[in-house]
Amino acid sequence: MSELIQFREYSKVELIDWMPRADAVPKDRVAQAARVSSGTEGHASERANTGLLKMLQRDRHGSPFEHVVFTWRVETPIFVAREFMRHRIASYNETSGRYRELEPLFYMPPRSRKLVQKGKPGAYEFEQGTDEQYEIVREHHEASAACAWHDYQAMLNAGIAREVARNVLPLSIFTSFYVTMNFRAFQNFASLRWAHPAAEVPTFPLYEIQQVCVGMESDVDELCSEMWDNFNNEGRRPV
Amino acid sequence: MSELIQFREYSKVELIDWMPRADAVPKDRVAQAARVSSGTEGHASERANTGLLKMLQRDRHGSPFEHVVFTWRVETPIFVAREFMRHRIASYNETSGRYRELEPLFYMPPRSRKLVQKGKPGAYEFEQGTDEQYEIVREHHEASAACAWHDYQAMLNAGIAREVARNVLPLSIFTSFYVTMNFRAFQNFASLRWAHPAAEVPTFPLYEIQQVCVGMESDVDELCSEMWDNFNNEGRRPV
Amino acid sequence: MSELIQFREYSKVELIDWMPRADAVPKDRVAQAARVSSGTEGHASERANTGLLKMLQRDRHGSPFEHVVFTWRVETPIFVAREFMRHRIASYNETSGRYRELEPLFYMPPRSRKLVQKGKPGAYEFEQGTDEQYEIVREHHEASAACAWHDYQAMLNAGIAREVARNVLPLSIFTSFYVTMNFRAFQNFASLRWAHPAAEVPTFPLYEIQQVCVGMESDVDELCSEMWDNFNNEGRRPV
Amino acid sequence: MSELIQFREYSKVELIDWMPRADAVPKDRVAQAARVSSGTEGHASERANTGLLKMLQRDRHGSPFEHVVFTWRVETPIFVAREFMRHRIASYNETSGRYRELEPLFYMPPRSRKLVQKGKPGAYEFEQGTDEQYEIVREHHEASAACAWHDYQAMLNAGIAREVARNVLPLSIFTSFYVTMNFRAFQNFASLRWAHPAAEVPTFPLYEIQQVCVGMESDVDELCSEMWDNFNNEGRRPV
Repeated sequence: MSELIQFREYSKVELIDWMPRADAVPKDRVAQAARVSSGTEGHASERANTGLLKMLQRDRHGSPFEHVVFTWRVETPIFVAREFMRHRIASYNETSGRYRELEPLFYMPPRSRKLVQKGKPGAYEFEQGTDEQYEIVREHHEASAACAWHDYQAMLNAGIAREVARNVLPLSIFTSFYVTMNFRAFQNFASLRWAHPAAEVPTFPLYEIQQVCVGMESDVDELCSEMWDNFNNEGRRPV
Repeated sequence: MSELIQFREYSKVELIDWMPRADAVPKDRVAQAARVSSGTEGHASERANTGLLKMLQRDRHGSPFEHVVFTWRVETPIFVAREFMRHRIASYNETSGRYRELEPLFYMPPRSRKLVQKGKPGAYEFEQGTDEQYEIVREHHEASAACAWHDYQAMLNAGIAREVARNVLPLSIFTSFYVTMNFRAFQNFASLRWAHPAAEVPTFPLYEIQQVCVGMESDVDELCSEMWDNFNNEGRRPV
Repeated sequence: MSELIQFREYSKVELIDWMPRADAVPKDRVAQAARVSSGTEGHASERANTGLLKMLQRDRHGSPFEHVVFTWRVETPIFVAREFMRHRIASYNETSGRYRELEPLFYMPPRSRKLVQKGKPGAYEFEQGTDEQYEIVREHHEASAACAWHDYQAMLNAGIAREVARNVLPLSIFTSFYVTMNFRAFQNFASLRWAHPAAEVPTFPLYEIQQVCVGMESDVDELCSEMWDNFNNEGRRPV
Repeated sequence: MSELIQFREYSKVELIDWMPRADAVPKDRVAQAARVSSGTEGHASERANTGLLKMLQRDRHGSPFEHVVFTWRVETPIFVAREFMRHRIASYNETSGRYRELEPLFYMPPRSRKLVQKGKPGAYEFEQGTDEQYEIVREHHEASAACAWHDYQAMLNAGIAREVARNVLPLSIFTSFYVTMNFRAFQNFASLRWAHPAAEVPTFPLYEIQQVCVGMESDVDELCSEMWDNFNNEGRRPV
């Protein structure tokens, strides 16, 4: 196997920026926007805002949450990026296999990744694989990455355009993207992409996108802990 | 006429917040997001970014501009808010006539507002009205505001709900809203809402929404002057 | 009061068109689109589709519902149109007070409309008004419509542009619009705009927009009765 | 190489359904929706509508075009689907590598596909490859497909879940999806995804997505020829 090829067992999520910044913390901006409806922008207090935010989450007054916006940079395999970008209320820019030669970084499932699926569509359960099964997964992830990378390089060396040569690369190759998403859209994302015990409606996300979601939630929880508690306390139902 | 009633000849636009803030100016964030596609995030320079931004605007690479986001607070008559909120790639919270008693603040066209329409749909031209015509406009804006406000108050005093009483208020009454909109969506807004000499495609906006657009563009130009020059130089064609 | 002025106590909702039409009923198109994910497009049966549709609604698999699309023509007062058009996942075209002279048709609350509001924001309750209160509502709706229409006509007769003269018209004047909305977006609309006994999450819609929603639901129920039952049975939670 | 593996040199585009159907052809529905603004719904004629539609396209009155909606079923390689689904004003359902075992159908560039890229980002040009280069492309597309399919099957045979095994499959494997998109969103798609001689603003689409776009345009042109002529005559600038 090529010396160059590397494997990574996890995605990276980096918070790049967020709004509001000027003179408000996120929960106060949400409260401020909500208060324009009742003409009480000047009457905010810590305690009153806490109650208001609970009510907004509980009664599905979703629009004030849209004024809080995050930008992340995500490094993840293409099969995760494909699922992620189905979320349309967001802005994306991603590494292009047309504009650059891709890097030989591939995803390898970690040993803790459940490998065996039971049940039928809509009600799958997953079980830990045996050591033998995990070895098979490792072996074939390595073999196919090596094979694909060889074919990719051979075409590039023959002067073939990157956008043709990349066709042979596997879904496990890493890509990078920026995503900007508001707090309301993120509630929807989180409600679907983490099989969280607090969730009222069950969801069956792919393990690898759940890992990305966990990373994003960690940032959201740090910046907006009170609002994130409200989300969890209301059964992770998107507002 | 009621002592309480007030008229205002203009809208107010206040920039509340924007993104990016953490460690980037807007143009550098756009360049950063764009560079992920070619793997050149680390190769940015002032000069290289300037060229990149021109190319992005010229060739309609719109998505990187979406990571720059603004929040404004706008005070404007309802007939302007109605047009504004047809722009769907944005987030809004507005004063509610259900949740609060509205204030007796009404729009009065300024003397400089052209009053007389010539031509046919799709090709209107406007001309300055005579002093007599302007007096007629003033008189009837005052009379109808006084009449409507009297009816509104009479119903409120009789214990009628605000959401019923407000039906009688005119489109000229002021409302307030927060709007969060990204730089790309704002290009579309500006392309339609200002009959600007640099525009390639003619547009015929309402005078009063153009005034709001002028105020917003002033903020955008201050924060993103280079990108805004590019927009104007490319004929104000939204990217 | 002018002979011309008319009042109407209700909105009109007319279904103009819908999709699918070619060779599928709505539920079969939803099932067909959903089945592409599991490669079972060819294995549909009446019974299997019924189970599939229940599962899609219950587990929030929302995207297949987006391939069912409706177009309505709505006649309603401006204060209702304002709320309606806050729903952004939809397409609108509306009567313009710039492009035409409006018609003297105004909304009058019907006797059955509850007039008195109790409680505080987020938890309002409404009670029937007395006959005296209803008379006050009638009187002031009539007076303000007459007053506004007089001012509007006086300005038009003086050669003032329609787009200036219309400022004085009240929120109760009727407007007409076309709206195209998919089945998933309509679930969200219905979940917020009808205080329906089957709703899990309480909502407090304006009486007049609920009437519009009731009309639209009647069409949806007729065309998609099985799917609409599923929506109601799952607590009217938008998918 | 496995007997099972198949290659296909083209994508398939099948028009499944469209709206309007009830009692209007597409251009008449667009005109009808546009006419609500001027109160001339009853005054339509073939000739008047023709002029109106030209004006709508020319002056960027885009919203009436949104009431015309198409559903297609597309079979295309994953690397094309990835680009396609960046178009967010649309509805998608796609084959899932989690819910089904994928089929061994892979993309092979046709001989006519230009293989050699000259120039730099933003201004690429492509040239026909030599016979030798094309042989190299064929050989490595075949080799990598065989290698990946072998690894995929080996994992499946060892009881590994489909959603893990599929990681090794290449971007060239075919996927299928339903897409529902309105006429306005399709104008944007077409403006970016076909390097068409009538285009005012140059675009540099991937060859394979242009082939998909050509297929879709053929359907749109058949159903909406007059509107499609207007789009082309106005420089393929999205409305």
